[in-house]
Formats: sequence, C-alpha cells, structure tokens
Amino acid sequence: MKFEVTILGSSSATPIYNRNPTSQALNINERWYLIDCGEGTQQQMLRFDIKASRIDHIFISHLHGDHYLGLVGLLSSMHLNGRVKPLKLFGPATLMEIIELQLKYSETTLNYPIEFTPTNAEIAQVIVDNDDVTIETIPLDHRIACTGFIFKEKKRLRKLLKEKLEELNVPVQFFTALKKGKDYVANDGTVYKNNTLTIDSEQPKSYAYCSDTLFNPAYFDQITNSDLLYHEATFLNNMADRARETHHTTALQAANIALQTNAKKLLIGHFSARYKSLDELLEEAQSVFPNTELAIEGKTFAI
Amino acid sequence: MKFEVTILGSSSATPIYNRNPTSQALNINERWYLIDCGEGTQQQMLRFDIKASRIDHIFISHLHGDHYLGLVGLLSSMHLNGRVKPLKLFGPATLMEIIELQLKYSETTLNYPIEFTPTNAEIAQVIVDNDDVTIETIPLDHRIACTGFIFKEKKRLRKLLKEKLEELNVPVQFFTALKKGKDYVANDGTVYKNNTLTIDSEQPKSYAYCSDTLFNPAYFDQITNSDLLYHEATFLNNMADRARETHHTTALQAANIALQTNAKKLLIGHFSARYKSLDELLEEAQSVFPNTELAIEGKTFAI
Repeated sequence: MKFEVTILGSSSATPIYNRNPTSQALNINERWYLIDCGEGTQQQMLRFDIKASRIDHIFISHLHGDHYLGLVGLLSSMHLNGRVKPLKLFGPATLMEIIELQLKYSETTLNYPIEFTPTNAEIAQVIVDNDDVTIETIPLDHRIACTGFIFKEKKRLRKLLKEKLEELNVPVQFFTALKKGKDYVANDGTVYKNNTLTIDSEQPKSYAYCSDTLFNPAYFDQITNSDLLYHEATFLNNMADRARETHHTTALQAANIALQTNAKKLLIGHFSARYKSLDELLEEAQSVFPNTELAIEGKTFAI
Repeated sequence: MKFEVTILGSSSATPIYNRNPTSQALNINERWYLIDCGEGTQQQMLRFDIKASRIDHIFISHLHGDHYLGLVGLLSSMHLNGRVKPLKLFGPATLMEIIELQLKYSETTLNYPIEFTPTNAEIAQVIVDNDDVTIETIPLDHRIACTGFIFKEKKRLRKLLKEKLEELNVPVQFFTALKKGKDYVANDGTVYKNNTLTIDSEQPKSYAYCSDTLFNPAYFDQITNSDLLYHEATFLNNMADRARETHHTTALQAANIALQTNAKKLLIGHFSARYKSLDELLEEAQSVFPNTELAIEGKTFAI
C-alpha cells in the first residue's frame, strides 16, 4: 500500500529563499490528505503536480498564518474547478468563522459541502477512521491552540499465495475468507492451514506530524514507534532560549525526541528565516539521530 | 521622476501555468505602492526583489480572493520583519473585519499601525494626495463592490539650466524661486527672464488600473488620456456573453476602451485559466489598439 508524504512548504512564519510556509500532502493508498495549508500551497500543488481534486481531507494544526493562509484560496479554486464532492476539514473551531466571513464578503457559495470537525488541543482524539487509516490529533504545546496529527495505517488482510492456490484449484469464492485467516477445506475434506496458503501482510506503519510545539514530553507517548516522525526544528540549539520563548523546538531537541520515542526516521522542517542554508540544522539533528532528513519542498518520503 | 509598474500577478480567479493572482507594485519617485495582493504576492515580491519594507500604501480593488488573499500574510511578514512605520491601506470597508478576525485568532498585535481608508465603489474619490501623486478611486461595475485606481503624477517644478546659472553666478538661495517660475534679478538690477534660466518639467503622467469590471462607459471619462491604461481582459471576445455574465471584459473590449479614452498605451491582464497561451488575447487587442502589451509577471513598464 502506498504511504508517502510530499513536502509542499517548510518555512516558518514567512516565506523566504524559495521556501514556502508549511504544507504537506499525504498519499495513503491513493487517497490524498493535506496537512496545513500555508500561503501559496495551491501554487506548490500545481508545481509538484498534486491534484486538488483528489484531496478529500484537510487538517489545519493551528491558526498562525503560515499554517492556513492558503486555505481559502484552495477552497475557492476547488469550487471554481467544479468540485461537488464533500471536503472533510479538521482544525480549530474558529477556523470556520474565518472561512465563512471571507466567503460572505466575496459573495461565494461553494458548490460542495465542507464537513468540518473542530479539533481539541487539550486531548488526543481519533478524528478519522476508514479502511486505510486511523488519524488522531496530538495535543501540542504552542502559543495558541495547536494539534499535530498521527496517521496509523490499518493492518491489511493476509496476502494470498496465488501459485499455491492455482495448484490446488481453490475456488475464488474462498479468497476473502483466506485473506481473513480462515483455513481452506477442500471438497475431499482435506484441511489446508491458512498459513500454507497465505502470508501475513506488512506491519502497518505510522506517520506523526508535530508542528508547532515546545519540547514537551506530554505528547511523546503518543508518537512512540513512529515509522516517520516529522518534527518542527525551527532553530539551532544555540537558540534554545528563543525556541522556549516562542514555543518552538530546536534541531537537537527534535533529534532527542526521535531518539526517546524510538522513531525509525526523523524529518525536520519549519525552518526559521534566519537560516539560508539548512546544513547546520541537519548536522545538529544527525549528531544525535543519524537517520534524519530535511523536509525539502518537492521531495517525497516513503513511510 | 521614476513612474513605473511591475507586474506580480496576472491570473484571474485561480493561479495556473505559473501565473499568480493579481498584484502590481508601482514605483513613483522611489515611493512604492502595491495594488491588489492575491495569494502568493509576498513570494512574488521576493522573487522580483521588491522590498515589502518600502511599501507604505496598499490598495485593494475588491474582496474576491484573487485580489486580496495574500494581504494578511504580507501584513504578518511586515510585522515579523520589524516594521514600525504606519501602513496606509485602502479597500472595501469590510476588509478590516477580515484582517482583524485573522489577527485575533492568531493572537497577533501588529507592531505598526494600519491607517485604513474605506473605498466607496459608487463615487470617484481622491484617496491620496502627496508631493508626487494624486490617487483617485474609479468606481467599476463588477459582481461585488469594486474600484480601480488612477495615479496622476503631480506637475514637477521647472528644471534649472545649471550651466547658465553657473555662468551668471546665480546664488543658490534663488534656486527654489527659479524652479517655481520667478525671474531672477541680479545685483546690478538686470532682470533675467525665468525661461532663459530654466526649462519646463515633463508633462505629468497618469496610470489607470481597471480590474475587475464589465465594459461600462460610466468610468471612461475618468480614465481619458491615460499614459498607461491597465485593463482586465479576462476572455477573448468569442466569450463576450460569459464576460457579461461574470462582469468581466474581453480583450477586444479592453482595446476599444483604450481607443475611446485615448490611452497612450494599453496593458491587459487578469487572464482566464482557460488560456494557456496568451497570444490570441494580445492579437485580439492589438487588432484594434496596436500599442498593447501583456501584463507578464516580473515585467516592469515605464509610464
């Protein structure tokens, strides 16, 4: 099953050095999910060929402009491009007030419904549960109400050993039961144990998205054992005081979180405008957690 | 005196084919003015090296998203980049409600004051009058309240013929009077006529910005004799019905307006997403008004 994330923006606060504010597009089994939507996200989607029409879920972490100012433009473009299917939107309760005010003054009635679910920055909640994935909010510790999101793949059905089934002439109508782990009883009464005809599917994976937040162990349990952990790393650790004041994390802290929570891989982003080159941020994180990469725009990371 | 406009965006409705929604930066005697501010305008300013810190006036024509969704991001970036000097903002009265709601929910108090002047889409009004320029609103005919803007250079003082003044040893303290047209009386009583010591300054120029609007002669008088007329030309004339329905103008109509109002030069923009190539729009306008150019992003036009 496809489970990958494409970075659309990784700048904190202001766009700079061709870095756009935060947005990421997730492809989970060919369903597309957008996380945050900074200004210019729809332009980035055009640039990296991510079709807005395929996105059915949008998650907004918090109401600082660098995480949502591209949303109304994207919603309007979806409308102008003929969307009629519902869009599921998740974010702080007051987000809808902002959207509705802007639609009101532009005298726009969207051709499609927005199904809005307000997030709660105090407690973790399951906000999506479909065939592919469970999505939970992660309460973060920022200056204003802010949640991350954790995407947990569902355990897939067992995989059929097709050659074996052909050899035994197993009728197609038994395949679903086999995928679910049942044994196969042939017409002559012979019992074939399930594990001789199928193999286990891959272990389900998880992607944790943590932006923006102070280093705060409160959410570490929830993100433990992530296959990919995206964590903001706004500053180098020589600016740890500034990070604390502004409720952000340093690259070193992000790496320590990855280590403490047993992440398989760490992706850092939300880079301050003070860093033209990102090399030092990467080196600092890798000094503690070698399997770290930078959230570079246009790059796709398999989870 | 410098009087030029740089195009930052020229797409209507949605960004497409690397065309951003509407925005233009005017340099009038090294004072910078921003007209409209579609999503991504601040990114375009970075791209074309136009410094936000130099902009003291922003004009928003109307509250369709493609004309203002980049504004809150730009205002926030000015704040984060340390701006303290006031910003003069002009636009529909409800624009401030949108800005204030977004600042409220991001818990942001700008470090600089916004001096807001609401525009009136019913009558032309002078909204700026400084040493360089007079700026008036142009009531346009769109689906929602919309104004264009006309920038009229002030007549400059006369220019001193420096060699002549040196030859006659005219003291510096007479220069201001000479610039204002006074004759010079030397110590020996000789009168030197002003026009022997100065020449007239250039004729003041004007730039009219008309977006978005139905073809409607109501505003033609006001824009007559523009040195540069920017006019929206959303569609080709084979879509004149669609233009009328959506309160837009065709390239042919824009050219006819330039002709009727005796513009020296026409700039067309606000191109529909249906046109990947803009050649036909240009050809159509030039068939009626040859001195037409396309508002291509990054291009600067002297007025």
